[in-house]
Amino acid sequence: MSGLRKIEITPIGFVKRASSGENVRDKSLVSRIVLKRVLVKALDGIEEFSHIFILYWMHKISKAERRLVHGEGRTETPLIGVFACRGPIRPNPIGLTLVELVKREENVLWVKGLDALDNTPVLDIKPYGRPSDIVMNFKAPKRFLEK
Amino acid sequence: MSGLRKIEITPIGFVKRASSGENVRDKSLVSRIVLKRVLVKALDGIEEFSHIFILYWMHKISKAERRLVHGEGRTETPLIGVFACRGPIRPNPIGLTLVELVKREENVLWVKGLDALDNTPVLDIKPYGRPSDIVMNFKAPKRFLEK
Repeated sequence: MSGLRKIEITPIGFVKRASSGENVRDKSLVSRIVLKRVLVKALDGIEEFSHIFILYWMHKISKAERRLVHGEGRTETPLIGVFACRGPIRPNPIGLTLVELVKREENVLWVKGLDALDNTPVLDIKPYGRPSDIVMNFKAPKRFLEK
Repeated sequence: MSGLRKIEITPIGFVKRASSGENVRDKSLVSRIVLKRVLVKALDGIEEFSHIFILYWMHKISKAERRLVHGEGRTETPLIGVFACRGPIRPNPIGLTLVELVKREENVLWVKGLDALDNTPVLDIKPYGRPSDIVMNFKAPKRFLEK
């Protein structure tokens, strides 16, 4: 092992939902990403994209919960490792969701399909659609494809 | 603005390349992700997937470079914001690459297509192929699709 032991990240903004009780798994809901004002110019050109990746920090996962439990299939057999599932419990609880960009107004993005809680810190925003973002001929277990 | 001001992340492992001088943009090259030994069980089940997302920290981007410069199209017009491109210079230099999983041996993954430098800290690994990972009907500017 070599290299950095600790990395410090400052959020670029926060998720804002219509209400904190909203069902974040409802992919039809629109939520907002409110970027820090100082970053407003960094969004220039994003309107050209229909879909963007949101990277966020699942802040409600406590350090204790980040232990190496088995993931999505916890109550099923066979058990699976946390890096073989997409559940929130993982050593670094970084969320990755591809969302539809509905509109931008200055430092605010309206996005559809973001499964992040109200006030979730946002780490990065990346536009979608590079040829290398899309693989059609892939293999994944059945449990995963049905999700 | 509300919520967390600073987030501390510990790498789960590091990228190891055949040589530190390798051209990391060559998508045909295979590199290794060497996970911390304590995390070995967290990979169980990953062999069921052909493709995985690697999230990594682009550690050669200095804090000074993370300012809000315009991105990939720097020398072209029109200029674009860093969140409208996929270049490494961004407030939080987190890399996101979809790679082919060639094989796993205990705590080591061999992956094809990872454009990360030797000794890059790895933050998370996520399996690919959820229906929500793939959007075929999307909009992106021509400059982006050609990359």
